[in-house]
Amino acid sequence: MQNNDIIVAPATALGGAIAVIRTSGEGSIALCDHIFKGRTSLSKASSHTIHYGTICDGERVVDDVVVAVFRAPHSYTGEESVEISIHGSRYVAQEVIRLLCEGGARMAEAGEFSQRALASGRIDLSQAEAVADLITAESRAAHAVASTQMRGGYSEQLETLREEMLNITTLLELELDFSEEDVEFADRARLRSMLAHTDGVVERLMESFRIGNAIREGVAVAIVGCPNVGKSTLLNRLVGDDRAMVSDIAGTTRDTIEESVVIEDIRFRFVDTAGLHDTDDRLEKMGIERTERAIRQAQIILYVTEPLQREFALPTLHDGQILLHVVNKMDTTDKRDRADAIYISAREGEGIDTLRKALRATIDTEGLYRGEVVVSNMRHFEALSRAHGSLQAALSALDMGVSEELLSEDIRSAINALAEITGKITSDDILKSVFSRFCIGK
Amino acid sequence: MQNNDIIVAPATALGGAIAVIRTSGEGSIALCDHIFKGRTSLSKASSHTIHYGTICDGERVVDDVVVAVFRAPHSYTGEESVEISIHGSRYVAQEVIRLLCEGGARMAEAGEFSQRALASGRIDLSQAEAVADLITAESRAAHAVASTQMRGGYSEQLETLREEMLNITTLLELELDFSEEDVEFADRARLRSMLAHTDGVVERLMESFRIGNAIREGVAVAIVGCPNVGKSTLLNRLVGDDRAMVSDIAGTTRDTIEESVVIEDIRFRFVDTAGLHDTDDRLEKMGIERTERAIRQAQIILYVTEPLQREFALPTLHDGQILLHVVNKMDTTDKRDRADAIYISAREGEGIDTLRKALRATIDTEGLYRGEVVVSNMRHFEALSRAHGSLQAALSALDMGVSEELLSEDIRSAINALAEITGKITSDDILKSVFSRFCIGK
Repeated sequence: MQNNDIIVAPATALGGAIAVIRTSGEGSIALCDHIFKGRTSLSKASSHTIHYGTICDGERVVDDVVVAVFRAPHSYTGEESVEISIHGSRYVAQEVIRLLCEGGARMAEAGEFSQRALASGRIDLSQAEAVADLITAESRAAHAVASTQMRGGYSEQLETLREEMLNITTLLELELDFSEEDVEFADRARLRSMLAHTDGVVERLMESFRIGNAIREGVAVAIVGCPNVGKSTLLNRLVGDDRAMVSDIAGTTRDTIEESVVIEDIRFRFVDTAGLHDTDDRLEKMGIERTERAIRQAQIILYVTEPLQREFALPTLHDGQILLHVVNKMDTTDKRDRADAIYISAREGEGIDTLRKALRATIDTEGLYRGEVVVSNMRHFEALSRAHGSLQAALSALDMGVSEELLSEDIRSAINALAEITGKITSDDILKSVFSRFCIGK
Repeated sequence: MQNNDIIVAPATALGGAIAVIRTSGEGSIALCDHIFKGRTSLSKASSHTIHYGTICDGERVVDDVVVAVFRAPHSYTGEESVEISIHGSRYVAQEVIRLLCEGGARMAEAGEFSQRALASGRIDLSQAEAVADLITAESRAAHAVASTQMRGGYSEQLETLREEMLNITTLLELELDFSEEDVEFADRARLRSMLAHTDGVVERLMESFRIGNAIREGVAVAIVGCPNVGKSTLLNRLVGDDRAMVSDIAGTTRDTIEESVVIEDIRFRFVDTAGLHDTDDRLEKMGIERTERAIRQAQIILYVTEPLQREFALPTLHDGQILLHVVNKMDTTDKRDRADAIYISAREGEGIDTLRKALRATIDTEGLYRGEVVVSNMRHFEALSRAHGSLQAALSALDMGVSEELLSEDIRSAINALAEITGKITSDDILKSVFSRFCIGK
């Protein structure tokens, strides 16, 4: 993917009033000019100008378009680039891309535009990832997480730590060269405090991942309970839509149904599940297996019961899961005998605001809005975990007076792990895995 | 909707790498400049230029953007207009629109940009409708239908007919003014042949609607048959996807499932239905009612049976419906005893190409690709039907020697009906109904 041929892809989603087809690479402008008929030739156009005309397949007019010309290096990729605004039809998009490919372009791979921006040094790797996150951000919190990362504060923080460690390691390795002479260039006390400080920062970043990940992916909430307690009615009420089929017949919901909605500034993903009960019906059993999976994957369990349903088996929670007990159908009774429950009527809407507030209160975003970096990316979390492991090993090594060689190796590992995040050190595998999660056209 | 305030809406679908927010109306450029920070001020920018910068909410950076400036009258609407390319996030789109609305813009209504283009005389009504159709075109045929209409060939044809009739009516009405004197300005033989010619054109356009409508909306195909003959497996095979849940349990499909796919150049909408059989189960009965509705609304019925299923009750067809008999599960037998059936194995894929070809052959597109106008719009079909009725009445009136007054009235009705199509004559109701079917941002 590192070469300089012309790539093409839709830059916008299709299905709106207009759509944008984007090309990048030397020769883009001449290529587009070949299928464009307008008052001026694109080849003579200045950078950052717009031209009205038609895209033609021989004599056949494919669409009326507006074309924007970007000359290198003043574009997202740093390369010569063209954006064609077409009427937002899938068919027209297909045809324009076909014509460009017949002229010598090729379909861009996922993330290839950003990868070229990375190659030309316009952004670093964690910024490229933040661009992808920003695109999928659907809430103020998710936007704040991606935006902080995109503006580069995070990269700078990691770079500073990495450079400090690099300086120390250089001194340590100098000692190795003079090992016969038993000199100590690197101050052990300073080294220890620096490693501990770095480890503290790494640990704080790791801790932020639980919230960052929930904000980025949407907080998974499983709505569970016995058949016919009103789980689907609650889902419809929470997402404000007739998403799930409801009836008074127990077992109406067979499959899990997922729907997401933003509450205040956080996106929640609600999973409506089949009612938990013993059954011999094969399709119902399949549904209940899916319910159990949904419970395992949820961060929050909304356990729904009816007012007169005294006993109920709580699902087993694992580390970090939160259970909210919701008593539904409060339009049929006034009986409120549990202090820890949220009383609602999904049918009438009563108590739903209280439930929303309780859900929102499970996520602490104070640090995020103060501008603190919140890690939301699994790849970063994994790199941080490796850095943490190496730093712990280095600290033990230091305490136990292990050789400079091993100590230096541990610190090198930590440095490399942090360098992977910003892409200072990278491999084809990492790049491939990062950019494959991008959409086509980015 | 006819005033000149500043309107704003997303012009592209959201969810791609980038999205475009569009404004139109005097003051658009100054409004956008207010929230834009870049090297140059937008207010000083020339038309058709592009500017890189950030959109800010006070100190908070909302996004890095690229802004295109269009000065009146050189834009789609004919008004001053700005297009802001943002990262394709719903949240960012929302924020940018919020900031613009706080600055004095308002959310555009559906189709309001096109309505302004209509008001400024840049397009006529049938062309505006064609723009909307072009956007939703998903096949070569649907593109051809919309494209012919958008380029205005259709409008010209109707205009010519209308003007001819208008000339004749003027002469007829002149006769009324001189009614005492028994003069005949309008040649009755020429009038008759002209009306007959016009009616012929109108009838041909009306006839084209059956195909035009099928091409535009997608050809509705109901997949019907007894439980467990493999209807859902066939749907999955046709759309190349695991769209419908399949199992060997009869009655797995409860609700109708619709999925569309383009075969060659035509889009087909396949509706998988619940198996037809007697049942007392309430949910199954609901499903079977939906099946019956799907059959009524389909243009093509795929009637699926099994090889050993000898007798079967054909659904009652109505005018113009086509039935294709499909025998499935041919991986279990070689018995082919019906000449009129298409033998397939949905599971193995055998015979699916033959079925696809049979489906495609039901739609005749020869005239369309020769460049003939094909009516695809229900509103046009209704106007043409009214014109046809009035022309028939006028021809009878002419034959029976009815008064010039009544004759002239019939021709006027026909003229007005045709004028409604291009929007030469229009009402707020028509405009409202036409543009309400547009997407926001067009």
